[in-house]
Amino acid sequence: MTEHELPSNLLEQAVNEMSRLPGIGRKTALRLILHLLREEKKDALKLGESLTKLVNDIHYCTVCHNITENEVCDICSDSARDHKTICVVEDIRDLLAIENTQQYNGVYHVLGGIISPIDGVGPGDLTIDLLMQRLEGEMPDEIIFALPTTMEGDTTNYYLHKQIAGRVDKITTLARGLSFGDELQYADEVTLGRSLVERIDYQTS
Amino acid sequence: MTEHELPSNLLEQAVNEMSRLPGIGRKTALRLILHLLREEKKDALKLGESLTKLVNDIHYCTVCHNITENEVCDICSDSARDHKTICVVEDIRDLLAIENTQQYNGVYHVLGGIISPIDGVGPGDLTIDLLMQRLEGEMPDEIIFALPTTMEGDTTNYYLHKQIAGRVDKITTLARGLSFGDELQYADEVTLGRSLVERIDYQTS
Repeated sequence: MTEHELPSNLLEQAVNEMSRLPGIGRKTALRLILHLLREEKKDALKLGESLTKLVNDIHYCTVCHNITENEVCDICSDSARDHKTICVVEDIRDLLAIENTQQYNGVYHVLGGIISPIDGVGPGDLTIDLLMQRLEGEMPDEIIFALPTTMEGDTTNYYLHKQIAGRVDKITTLARGLSFGDELQYADEVTLGRSLVERIDYQTS
Repeated sequence: MTEHELPSNLLEQAVNEMSRLPGIGRKTALRLILHLLREEKKDALKLGESLTKLVNDIHYCTVCHNITENEVCDICSDSARDHKTICVVEDIRDLLAIENTQQYNGVYHVLGGIISPIDGVGPGDLTIDLLMQRLEGEMPDEIIFALPTTMEGDTTNYYLHKQIAGRVDKITTLARGLSFGDELQYADEVTLGRSLVERIDYQTS
């Protein structure tokens, strides 16, 4: 369909930009943009304007690299939280997911990605330098790695561990095992194997 | 995940606007926007800017309502095309699909939607008035309805037919039947039934 040239350069450019987003192809981009064009002009303008404003005015917390509107984010400036425990996450979606559990009262460090050579993301693209500075200044008791359980997540875990080992007393990572509601027969071998190896004492669980 | 409040109003607004697009939920919107924020600022700005520019500067062909950068679109201003045949389509995606077949040399009329009471789209929201004016001025020999084969498409066909009947000698609609590569046993009953009723003389096909 999109083999045929679009009838307007403006449309072509918008479709090109939209289809650079992950999982959005040219057909989908055109569909979304045509939907936008059918709206009232003042409503249709809001998406572009809010994106431009966001990219121009976005601030990252100078402590943990969370997105914020202030110099320091709400979590880092909350004195009721435990500033001696730092949870390292890939991006703010994971931070929000952990906040939603209401099981964590420490602070965070947002890496802004994970090491992925295929996508051209190396350690230098992440906020690892900032994390190392925090270790010097804040002397945390514990660092928790809360990274994805993927090849890239494990690579990042490994790299961070090598950098941090010896500087912090306690380095932990999220437990791996069966998910809530999992049936054993459908669990993958790696997960089931690890949940056996790292089985928990029934008295303490 | 998104139950938890986003840590920035700017981000909240961008996610809200993005998730108004069809098929984009809040989780997806946040993922797309975080992807954008990981890019270089000058690249990240392009999406918002191109959307704003598109919505502000978009032109519709004054003849057929196709998207164009000029007063009249390339198709309407092409004297090599048959201006006595008008093909009525829902939007420019369908126009592009027909152009790709290279089987059509007439002109188009872009409705900008189809009648869909559920979505709040009535005849007044479409370019039907413009089409009626064209019939007066251009006196076409044939109008082809090339609308979706859905309930909404059929409703629009019916409405247009009632408006146009008597004003144009020939009113046609796209043939319905088996698709290229279809196997009879898997075709739905309506399609197979119509392909029987409207069977084509073997000599002429």
